[in-house]
Amino acid sequence: MPKISQTGLRIPASPIRKLVPYAEAAKRRGVHVYHLNIGQPDIPTPDEALAAIRAIDVRTVAYTHSAGIESYREGLAEFYTQRGLPLTGEQIVVTTGGSEAILMGMLAACDRGDRIIVPEPYYANYNGFAAEAGVEIVPVRSYIEDDFALPPIAEFEKRIDARTRGILICNPNNPTGYLYSEEEIRQLREIVLRHDLFLMADEVYSDFCYEGAKHHSVLALEGMDEHVIMMDSISKRFSMCGARVGALVSRNPAVIDAALRMGQARLCAPYVGQVAAEAALNTPRSYFTTVHDEYEARRNFMISALNKMPGVRCPMPRGAFYAIAELPVDDADRFAQWMLEEFEYQGRTVMVAPASGFYAEPETGRHQVRLAYVLNIEDLRGAMETLSVALRAYPGRWGL
Amino acid sequence: MPKISQTGLRIPASPIRKLVPYAEAAKRRGVHVYHLNIGQPDIPTPDEALAAIRAIDVRTVAYTHSAGIESYREGLAEFYTQRGLPLTGEQIVVTTGGSEAILMGMLAACDRGDRIIVPEPYYANYNGFAAEAGVEIVPVRSYIEDDFALPPIAEFEKRIDARTRGILICNPNNPTGYLYSEEEIRQLREIVLRHDLFLMADEVYSDFCYEGAKHHSVLALEGMDEHVIMMDSISKRFSMCGARVGALVSRNPAVIDAALRMGQARLCAPYVGQVAAEAALNTPRSYFTTVHDEYEARRNFMISALNKMPGVRCPMPRGAFYAIAELPVDDADRFAQWMLEEFEYQGRTVMVAPASGFYAEPETGRHQVRLAYVLNIEDLRGAMETLSVALRAYPGRWGL
Repeated sequence: MPKISQTGLRIPASPIRKLVPYAEAAKRRGVHVYHLNIGQPDIPTPDEALAAIRAIDVRTVAYTHSAGIESYREGLAEFYTQRGLPLTGEQIVVTTGGSEAILMGMLAACDRGDRIIVPEPYYANYNGFAAEAGVEIVPVRSYIEDDFALPPIAEFEKRIDARTRGILICNPNNPTGYLYSEEEIRQLREIVLRHDLFLMADEVYSDFCYEGAKHHSVLALEGMDEHVIMMDSISKRFSMCGARVGALVSRNPAVIDAALRMGQARLCAPYVGQVAAEAALNTPRSYFTTVHDEYEARRNFMISALNKMPGVRCPMPRGAFYAIAELPVDDADRFAQWMLEEFEYQGRTVMVAPASGFYAEPETGRHQVRLAYVLNIEDLRGAMETLSVALRAYPGRWGL
Repeated sequence: MPKISQTGLRIPASPIRKLVPYAEAAKRRGVHVYHLNIGQPDIPTPDEALAAIRAIDVRTVAYTHSAGIESYREGLAEFYTQRGLPLTGEQIVVTTGGSEAILMGMLAACDRGDRIIVPEPYYANYNGFAAEAGVEIVPVRSYIEDDFALPPIAEFEKRIDARTRGILICNPNNPTGYLYSEEEIRQLREIVLRHDLFLMADEVYSDFCYEGAKHHSVLALEGMDEHVIMMDSISKRFSMCGARVGALVSRNPAVIDAALRMGQARLCAPYVGQVAAEAALNTPRSYFTTVHDEYEARRNFMISALNKMPGVRCPMPRGAFYAIAELPVDDADRFAQWMLEEFEYQGRTVMVAPASGFYAEPETGRHQVRLAYVLNIEDLRGAMETLSVALRAYPGRWGL
């Protein structure tokens, strides 16, 4: 049998995926599973986008321009510009989801064996893209005790060497929900300029900031046009995860050229998704207000409920729709599996994402889980009640 | 300014793309451009698929399973099985176009620096995927004098070394239109087994075989389950290039596992495209017959017209909808640009794909172009007439 590549094997199998069979078995037993494990919001896609899909009346579903449908790129540039980030269509490559934007960004900035520094815990799928691109992720740890704030710049500096090509942040952060302050973004600017690196920012949750907080895009930093690569997506903004439309944004023409070459190799991003994305640009302001208020209420409810449970610690996230909680359990992977396999309360249980998958060294996340508040408040109430009972019943309680 | 990666730069800018501004300028001058340069068919997408898009009535356009919508995977397995290639849904990963299937196949089979042997001329975008995957393409040349038949197996054998991980063919071939015989596929089987390699086959044109010829899929080879990786797409089968739905197919569970890990990292293939693809499985037989007959008539017309032009040689392709023609010109890149920039006949001109982009060493394709017969016969007639006049008028005539 021919040898399979190490590249494939180097992509860690997600701890969430390992739990899926247990969740399916629980459902077969008639147990209701509250899914706090995934970032699939229950929010409806805007009517404008759905109507555009139903109105597709082409004779042939043809390729689009490799950089994206021109009118959509122009519309997207206008969208950013209106938000105070002046951009042109030529500074955007429409991608197949934010996922492809991240892969393209890594490939544009790095050659094989190059390194990117990423605050951890970080979005687990960065590992997959890094393995595919042959890039090494160098983690710099953020701590629950600091609400997962940006680690001290000195910690980044220590990790920079000749192979370092950039710093990648996710802002607001998946999995922590942390929203970087303007001061933190400016600190990153300094270090990136000092060492002539790329500053890559996954800003797919930029629409989700709470308590009136402002999102500070890396695209707003002055003197950074050559250094900044921003990755965006419509998946969360318009609750259209399945459309697979994102964007790589940079004012550095060399980055756009590299991304476009990759874009031409794979021909184009999905046509229907792009049409829907363009239509979604006309989504009324009220949609965002409603969604924002709904998530803020869910967040307030969930974080408050978590911190009332003995031994649980969960910082208040100011963005995205995730939180990392520390649980009084011996091993969060084991606890998550136990909830699905052996536990139920009033016919219900909860599925969480063990945080081990969000750390370069899984052991680091041993006592933590990521919770996505993508359920309505009534379901969240049931989920919190169930989780609370589960924590008391779990035989591997720890730290209390 | 931070250094851009060599990876991005290593992806050759397509010679077709370089011509696009000249084509646009010609159109602005009011010249009609016959596009024989691209593989975007004018054939309508089946009604079944278009109706499925318009009937989308979900509330939220959500992620699908990372391996593809389960019912679609099952339906696709049934589609292959009915064609004599027994497969199950678990042996399929639905991809974002055939493009992603090729990238995933390369990444599953190869580590950085590994090699894949590819008969040339070959689909130019393989270069892009190879650059991204860090894989080296080792060309083995096929010749217009042999109608671009499979090069002698000894030529493959000569190129196999410790870093060789597989052989990649495109069957029927883009850009040559060559349809490999059963004997040729069996020769590849022998060498792949002898050296324990992967046999990768891009079979996205398998529906396009002429003169009643049968397509011989690598999936039909016995004793090859661990060695075969097939890349497929609905882009050409259902004239749905913009849907971006393809498939990686293998009976080797390790290959599927690697592809699925990559699939999980990028979450899923486009939802709407998959829904349309599943609906398209119900396309009536008559659709294929009509399309087949149309392409066969176009092929017969175009190849015959080409071979009547003095100094032009074009083998009769038996599959896909491309042909490589040798032209009596000093440099096909220059000729292609000249046709767009300086030539017109009765207000019309022709855009062709210089073959230089399909050879590892561009110089090899200096006198050749690829022509896609994706226009109706009336337009093809106009295109051939125009090309014939252009060849007589071109100042850089050669070889006559």
